Amino acid sequence: MLNYQPSVTNSKTTDPRFELSDAARYFYRQDWMVGTAGNLSARLPDDSFWITASGKAKGELSTSDFVRVTLTGEILERASANIKPSAETIIHQVIYSLFPAAQACYHVHSIEANLVSHFTEKLNLLLPPLEMVKGLGVWEENPQVAIPIFENHLEVPQIAAEISDRFSTQLPQVPALLIRNHGVTVWADSLTSARNYVELIEYIFRYMVAARQAGIF
Amino acid sequence: MLNYQPSVTNSKTTDPRFELSDAARYFYRQDWMVGTAGNLSARLPDDSFWITASGKAKGELSTSDFVRVTLTGEILERASANIKPSAETIIHQVIYSLFPAAQACYHVHSIEANLVSHFTEKLNLLLPPLEMVKGLGVWEENPQVAIPIFENHLEVPQIAAEISDRFSTQLPQVPALLIRNHGVTVWADSLTSARNYVELIEYIFRYMVAARQAGIF
Amino acid sequence: MLNYQPSVTNSKTTDPRFELSDAARYFYRQDWMVGTAGNLSARLPDDSFWITASGKAKGELSTSDFVRVTLTGEILERASANIKPSAETIIHQVIYSLFPAAQACYHVHSIEANLVSHFTEKLNLLLPPLEMVKGLGVWEENPQVAIPIFENHLEVPQIAAEISDRFSTQLPQVPALLIRNHGVTVWADSLTSARNYVELIEYIFRYMVAARQAGIF
Amino acid sequence: MLNYQPSVTNSKTTDPRFELSDAARYFYRQDWMVGTAGNLSARLPDDSFWITASGKAKGELSTSDFVRVTLTGEILERASANIKPSAETIIHQVIYSLFPAAQACYHVHSIEANLVSHFTEKLNLLLPPLEMVKGLGVWEENPQVAIPIFENHLEVPQIAAEISDRFSTQLPQVPALLIRNHGVTVWADSLTSARNYVELIEYIFRYMVAARQAGIF
Repeated sequence: MLNYQPSVTNSKTTDPRFELSDAARYFYRQDWMVGTAGNLSARLPDDSFWITASGKAKGELSTSDFVRVTLTGEILERASANIKPSAETIIHQVIYSLFPAAQACYHVHSIEANLVSHFTEKLNLLLPPLEMVKGLGVWEENPQVAIPIFENHLEVPQIAAEISDRFSTQLPQVPALLIRNHGVTVWADSLTSARNYVELIEYIFRYMVAARQAGIF
Repeated sequence: MLNYQPSVTNSKTTDPRFELSDAARYFYRQDWMVGTAGNLSARLPDDSFWITASGKAKGELSTSDFVRVTLTGEILERASANIKPSAETIIHQVIYSLFPAAQACYHVHSIEANLVSHFTEKLNLLLPPLEMVKGLGVWEENPQVAIPIFENHLEVPQIAAEISDRFSTQLPQVPALLIRNHGVTVWADSLTSARNYVELIEYIFRYMVAARQAGIF
Repeated sequence: MLNYQPSVTNSKTTDPRFELSDAARYFYRQDWMVGTAGNLSARLPDDSFWITASGKAKGELSTSDFVRVTLTGEILERASANIKPSAETIIHQVIYSLFPAAQACYHVHSIEANLVSHFTEKLNLLLPPLEMVKGLGVWEENPQVAIPIFENHLEVPQIAAEISDRFSTQLPQVPALLIRNHGVTVWADSLTSARNYVELIEYIFRYMVAARQAGIF
Repeated sequence: MLNYQPSVTNSKTTDPRFELSDAARYFYRQDWMVGTAGNLSARLPDDSFWITASGKAKGELSTSDFVRVTLTGEILERASANIKPSAETIIHQVIYSLFPAAQACYHVHSIEANLVSHFTEKLNLLLPPLEMVKGLGVWEENPQVAIPIFENHLEVPQIAAEISDRFSTQLPQVPALLIRNHGVTVWADSLTSARNYVELIEYIFRYMVAARQAGIF
């Protein structure tokens, strides 16, 4: 474990921390990263990844608010020793390990994600057949797409282990998962796609909540 | 089919792509063009029209994110060969063909448009008698205005054919149509009016959803 | 009736059109003056008043988007002959005539104002006893405040006559009135207070709608 | 009681009025300080505190819109004699007296805070076991956290006395309290934490209202 040293990926075009900070500011303004909630990461060519540090206000991140860690959670780089990686780093480790093509993993805490996590007690939540579902990569006439739900635990490694276990035997239909009372996590092969996926899935969740409130389904 | 060549309509005052980009940014910020959803077009004096290219983030369009096509869908102009016109261009072709006075056609994907598309199983959705309905050109004491609803299909040409068929025998009362689970489309004799119509109809949809949630109707 | 001539009240500090434009932009961004809906006015020392012209987008008014009229509706001043005063100018005439202390009259069209206008079929709508009601000038432990409701009519003079008739015999408890399906109108002894009243009453309406949706009352 | 004199705490980094103004502007834009509602304060090293003056629009406070008072309510400093401290200053006095570590006390008036104050008739409102509750300092698997509710009274000293009485015998689980129909008050050991607490607790209230509207609990 090293203390801070100048990053090898420190130009604005190649350092993903700038785009992660932009995404965090946008999510914060949408009320999806209220206070210091949520965490965002981006994988680097050497399979390490930058992840938001613990306890930082997501509306105003700077490059020093990130920690670079390996897929096994070893800290490689940070601005100072008192900066901790997100308490949920291990979930990102699991996602990057399970999905080699994933270049970004975004975890946000919308109210609607928490609400829909109670729409079923099952392991999967069926999404409505909105045209918008196509944006998640499903091109069917009346798509029957479900998103996996996991239980929340005080110990994050237990959440991570349950994700790893279930996805090892059955991959999800869409690159997203819910943790009950604890937001949504998406992953994608680029930072732009990860942001788009968050927007799309939050749109679908807002639709589901409004539909339930209107007594439609 | 040509590759990109400087447009004959490239000044800020006469090139409608600037106003289309402004409208798209506004709609994106309203959550009506989430991700890359929706498409906007404007007719030119030669009966061709500029339409948003496929897969572009609607919050930050530039003039190169549009394709100019004829009323039969032939591509006349674009920045590069890998830029595709919107997958729903054929719906715009149908609207411009059916309504010769239409100078702009806007298709957006609000949550409320999707919700109200389920408020009836019939071919038309009755709008509430709000004063705001006057803005759509209906000046009556208690206006009984309905908006046509079409089914969504995986194949867009089928949607376009059903619009063309129904409107050939019966014109709609207002310049707007719904596709179930797939947003609203409006048209108008100017870009300004098209934007106003989107605002008005989305206002009416929001009212309808909130009224249903409050148990009013 | 005169054509445009330089106004005697054209400095930024004394000409109320600047503050009216600011208020309109704010209300537009709140979705309370969607499209070209609503109208705002301010009384001048000579008892004439500036009112928003008909059909102008409320998010971007300039001083030429106003008409100066007398309390009897005679046009005194405007930028050009094709600029019409708001179709609802006569309601402002009635308010300024009934309430000599009123210096501003604001009419906006929120979704919530339209919804609460259906919460009762009576002539008055009881407001909830929120602390916020104090901002409307009512200082009581559990305030029982009602806002008068009028029917909407295609002919605006009929609305104005009904307001004049009812208020001539009974003054409202708060400086505000609802027209069913047609927004709220407030008046105050300054432009700042009128804007505050709009904010407060819209807050109360939002509370009422959300409470009804939550089944609270 | 003194008239205005240059403050000893007048640099941007040490004078808390700048951060209080920023927080007020943010809360105003969230619709939590509509009109002139709410009040914010920050304790100084000498145990006096700056509090927002009465009747000021919270979206645009300047340093002269604050009054410095002692823990017993004596006015120490203000820009002019016609500036009154918030009518609810006595509640801040009680909070700072009861909680010596509190450096900031924020009182805002969201619609959701008012709504949830009616979700129970008891003295305490149980919060849902959201992950977000951890941000209020409660680290449990399924946290059972309640927030105290007080009755609203026309006479603010009566509210303050009831807070003082109840908290003298039983401290709340979280640094927050509700007054029925009259918003939420939070306190924290820094201005940054107080703002975070407001964001978190308003997030929880929004969740509770939306859940109730969706029939979830």
